[in-house]
Amino acid sequence: MSSSLDIVLDPASVAIIGASENPDKIGGRPVDYLRRFGFRGRVLPINPNRAEIQGLPSFPSLEALPFAPDVAIIAVPGEAAVAAVEGCADVGVKVAIMMASGFGETEGGKAQEREMAARARARNLRLVGPNSQGLANFATGAVLSFSSMYLEAPPQDGPVAILSQSGAMSVVPYGVLRGRGIGVRHSHATGNDCDVTAAELASIVAADPDLRVMLLYLESIASTEHLAAAARIAHARDLPILALKPGRSAAGQAAARSHTGALANEDRVVDAFLRRHGIRRVADTAEMVDAVELYLKGWKPRGRRLVVISNSGATCVMAADAATVAGLPMARLADETQAGLRAVLPSFAATANPIDITAALLSNSRLFSQILPIIARDPAADAFLIGVPVAGAAYDVPAFARDAAEFAAETGKPVVIAAPQASVAGAFAAAGLPVFAYETQAVAALAGFINHAELATRLPPEAPPPAALLGEGRPLNEADSLKRLSEAGVPVMPHRLCRTEDEAAAAWEGFGGAVAVKGCSADVTHKSELGLVRLGLADPQAVRAAFRDCRRALLEAGLRFDGVLVAPMRRGRRELLLGAHRDPVFGPVVVVGDGGKYVEALPDTVLLLPPFNAADVLTALERLRIAPVLRGVRGEQAMELDALAAAAVAVGRLMLEAPSIISVDVNPLLLGDVGEGVVALDAVVIEAEPPETAP
Amino acid sequence: MSSSLDIVLDPASVAIIGASENPDKIGGRPVDYLRRFGFRGRVLPINPNRAEIQGLPSFPSLEALPFAPDVAIIAVPGEAAVAAVEGCADVGVKVAIMMASGFGETEGGKAQEREMAARARARNLRLVGPNSQGLANFATGAVLSFSSMYLEAPPQDGPVAILSQSGAMSVVPYGVLRGRGIGVRHSHATGNDCDVTAAELASIVAADPDLRVMLLYLESIASTEHLAAAARIAHARDLPILALKPGRSAAGQAAARSHTGALANEDRVVDAFLRRHGIRRVADTAEMVDAVELYLKGWKPRGRRLVVISNSGATCVMAADAATVAGLPMARLADETQAGLRAVLPSFAATANPIDITAALLSNSRLFSQILPIIARDPAADAFLIGVPVAGAAYDVPAFARDAAEFAAETGKPVVIAAPQASVAGAFAAAGLPVFAYETQAVAALAGFINHAELATRLPPEAPPPAALLGEGRPLNEADSLKRLSEAGVPVMPHRLCRTEDEAAAAWEGFGGAVAVKGCSADVTHKSELGLVRLGLADPQAVRAAFRDCRRALLEAGLRFDGVLVAPMRRGRRELLLGAHRDPVFGPVVVVGDGGKYVEALPDTVLLLPPFNAADVLTALERLRIAPVLRGVRGEQAMELDALAAAAVAVGRLMLEAPSIISVDVNPLLLGDVGEGVVALDAVVIEAEPPETAP
Repeated sequence: MSSSLDIVLDPASVAIIGASENPDKIGGRPVDYLRRFGFRGRVLPINPNRAEIQGLPSFPSLEALPFAPDVAIIAVPGEAAVAAVEGCADVGVKVAIMMASGFGETEGGKAQEREMAARARARNLRLVGPNSQGLANFATGAVLSFSSMYLEAPPQDGPVAILSQSGAMSVVPYGVLRGRGIGVRHSHATGNDCDVTAAELASIVAADPDLRVMLLYLESIASTEHLAAAARIAHARDLPILALKPGRSAAGQAAARSHTGALANEDRVVDAFLRRHGIRRVADTAEMVDAVELYLKGWKPRGRRLVVISNSGATCVMAADAATVAGLPMARLADETQAGLRAVLPSFAATANPIDITAALLSNSRLFSQILPIIARDPAADAFLIGVPVAGAAYDVPAFARDAAEFAAETGKPVVIAAPQASVAGAFAAAGLPVFAYETQAVAALAGFINHAELATRLPPEAPPPAALLGEGRPLNEADSLKRLSEAGVPVMPHRLCRTEDEAAAAWEGFGGAVAVKGCSADVTHKSELGLVRLGLADPQAVRAAFRDCRRALLEAGLRFDGVLVAPMRRGRRELLLGAHRDPVFGPVVVVGDGGKYVEALPDTVLLLPPFNAADVLTALERLRIAPVLRGVRGEQAMELDALAAAAVAVGRLMLEAPSIISVDVNPLLLGDVGEGVVALDAVVIEAEPPETAP
Repeated sequence: MSSSLDIVLDPASVAIIGASENPDKIGGRPVDYLRRFGFRGRVLPINPNRAEIQGLPSFPSLEALPFAPDVAIIAVPGEAAVAAVEGCADVGVKVAIMMASGFGETEGGKAQEREMAARARARNLRLVGPNSQGLANFATGAVLSFSSMYLEAPPQDGPVAILSQSGAMSVVPYGVLRGRGIGVRHSHATGNDCDVTAAELASIVAADPDLRVMLLYLESIASTEHLAAAARIAHARDLPILALKPGRSAAGQAAARSHTGALANEDRVVDAFLRRHGIRRVADTAEMVDAVELYLKGWKPRGRRLVVISNSGATCVMAADAATVAGLPMARLADETQAGLRAVLPSFAATANPIDITAALLSNSRLFSQILPIIARDPAADAFLIGVPVAGAAYDVPAFARDAAEFAAETGKPVVIAAPQASVAGAFAAAGLPVFAYETQAVAALAGFINHAELATRLPPEAPPPAALLGEGRPLNEADSLKRLSEAGVPVMPHRLCRTEDEAAAAWEGFGGAVAVKGCSADVTHKSELGLVRLGLADPQAVRAAFRDCRRALLEAGLRFDGVLVAPMRRGRRELLLGAHRDPVFGPVVVVGDGGKYVEALPDTVLLLPPFNAADVLTALERLRIAPVLRGVRGEQAMELDALAAAAVAVGRLMLEAPSIISVDVNPLLLGDVGEGVVALDAVVIEAEPPETAP
């Protein structure tokens, strides 16, 4: 599949259809770039009106070329572009990059784009775009792009790859990183992704052994295959991937539709998918570009405990707040360390972490170099923030920066700098340390980096097979639903499906004590709305009456009567929900969370994409709002989270193993104390209709 | 009170105790600054060892001066500094600024600092510090500071005031703003605030008619008086105040204690206080400094509807997401506007808001100037984001910037720019528009500005009188608590306090139907733990038995028996909580929120500081997680929020009018449908013990 796409990163020849003499035009810019940035293959301008383009011989048409170029850039608009795709297929071009806009991102152009993609696939032409700003590989000089950014910020090969549907988002990170002196090898903008997607290109680029970090901007994820493949390759190589996936809001999704024709993804499922694949999802461009430097240092964080060092108490206070927000506990320094610091610092300095050198640094610039070795020896520290909000001519800032860089090298632990003053920031950056303006930014970047390292320890799973379209399906009745779940390993309440009053009364007798009686019908998924749930029935007359009522209610409503379920009343600690459905892109999704009446209005759930294990569930449950209650508060016992995790794993396995199941909804799942387990009190399983067979 | 403090901003004479020949020393820097920055008063170095300091005649002591200086800077450390305070009082200095550290921010120095402050007050000397970096007023040249920042970033008088306890946080915003070409008049660092506080100084500075924005950094708020005064003065003058108040977390509070000796404030009460006083609380330095430019434009936002314009679809998508997060709805443009845009832009451009000019701007730089007038006419737009993520030599960026500035001037509405490229950002900044690197930052800054304008419309209240220390107090029993609340205007359940079994049975008779019986004792605030709550009793025998049980349980536990409460069982829609307490700094605080068992583990409450009205409560309730449920979801009726608001207002009034009440805890407050009102089902009022009087 990707064998023919590889070549777009290092083609032997590139034709430019619609090549222009003017290097500022879309058809002129790539010609200029290919010559300017060291491309060693053939550059073949195509323009019927000129014999020469930017000093190169020009050809009147693709057909007039002496051989089939590996890659063709289609820099003509509209119908001419569509015709050029056909022309590329005719002569045997391997990859075409189509820059024209006005296709899938407009209502009128969607069908034409789909058709064009299908024809290209049928003819073995890989198609990048339409609406693509082009691709750029600065290792090979294959700069097949009309972006003007590579003039604004001259390229330098380096360890960063940027893959984006958007043209702007391929070059904004490029420009910012280049401005910070960081080299960028790949900067690709794939546009509407009608055939080649940014994710597919990422799966090829991820194999580049010189890369240290990969940045993705994805407006939609149409399939998981390539992204999962990229994640697995990256994991094997220890290559971190950061993804910016906008369209989180309805307003953003509408905008993405008119930008790259993006279909809306279910945002929380995107979160779960990226997390499961070790891909860090960043909130915005700032988080993305500000993260890069930390990845380039080669640090392997071993823990989360932060030490803050500053010449300003305010930095200490604000950094401690920020660390709390970011979930980085302040390291508790050893008594020995604190004693060492007290011996050096003035008596009014703070020597417990955060360490406030105070304005005494103004009188004694050596304080900084004296305390760092003391702190470096403390094993409680996992990462460091050094904040120098104010310094100037009266301080030896270059020495601070050198000392900090030596300290970082000696400890091998992550060190970030907060320095709002340009002169101070410049000195620390020159010493090779990641510099941020403010404490909050530095701490957030550090926390993101540490979180990602924790996320990336697990091997991403193989992509599940693409979800089949299963249609609406039909609900199983409660008894069948519970049976299906029980077989799958989910504990369900003891119950009897009773077809007659006598059976119901006998069931009451058998259970002893109060029971619940529920009308059972495959036609009804919301029983209480029809009055089909009777609770706490304590004598046979009440049970018989309930049987009759349920039967009557169903039959009068013209609904199927499958009997009544009789079950003992159960008490637990909390009603949860456990469900699953199939996302059209991401496949099975399991949902676990707080139950009750307002699960939609006040959602408190976590999503997991199977396959996952019990430890994954327990980690995910920590993100619930009700997590403290599940662990036990007010002297209460902890609830049976292992049993809850096992039930969630069972539902995940069921979704993988039973492809006919469309959805599962266990609500409530009653959670008890440790030792009491969980039990499904009610459930609806929806299954695909079996395919019709010939009689 | 402040009359003598005023003079510190424009003194006729300044003595520097511990003046140094070396301008890089703490005692040398102010001497240098006073001469360098145009101070027109007398500068009086005091140093027993030199006849001349930095070219000025030096005096051996304060006493040797020919007259009492208005202000003295105490630049000597430790005990010498303490002695200097006395010396200042002896000669009649009006304000002393004490730079020495090692007082209230250390365990050993707290008592000494308190004593020093008390003595200064007794002797009519106003004392700034200790641990103060000093004050700087660039309008008068009274730069009484040892900060080196004013050398790094040369001053220019302007419309910004910065008041901070921390030295760093007085000059970091200064440095950043000066770097952006913004003038700063005041930059004051008050240190430990043992006498003069940053807030008191703010209340004086706020009267400066040339100011357009005031920035505060407060590590603790020891009293509300001056901050409330500053807020009222600022409100009258339409001067926005932004406050950074760290110590939100336990780690931050611990750090603040060793920095400026800050006492921890209850963070949510700080939030409520600042909000009520129209002061915008910023999360960090970045938010503070990035906000300033918007305030300097003189914009008065009239609404929240945002229009996004960009040459990049990705900016459009990310800005729409950011607007959703920030609570700025995307404006719905008039059909006429969209038609006008369609006539100008290419067919594939997005003309619904966000407006994506697309890469077509590369071929036609005039598109930008053509669309702005069309958008300017649309009344649906309240504010604008213009995003130019990529542009360069091929674009006419200076023209874009001029067009955008004209557009802003024409509409009079807020316009923010997102431009990560330095060259583009520079052009827009030169045209006088507020520029941010990324969409998210620009949208967040705009939303903060608009939110603040909404917040600042109401007149801040007078500061309530300082809270008296009321001690532990004693709880009233339930009957007395309910009586107190009922008299205050809070609806309470109908009930009878019964002293005998017969009275209880008669009460049951009187109410009809099932009742609740609760043991009543001023010794018990948690009845259910003692088994004193019996619900749903439907016959007189059960009521009598419950009476006996409650009586026995109390007497056996050695607790007072005040009778039992009999009350009809009530059903409502949701159990809320309504409470109040007295904060030692901020006075009465009313808490409203969701009720139930886990109000501590899963808090969902809002705080209000009396006096407030029903509209304030309704606005605050919108911030509750359960707000959608209160408004009605799943086809349910809305709940009776007006009655809830009235009950909260009644409790707020009670706390103001009955200073002996220490706390109120109504839990549950039963909330019904609209028309059904609220009713307190249980309550504990704690009242101060009446003062002992002679027999």
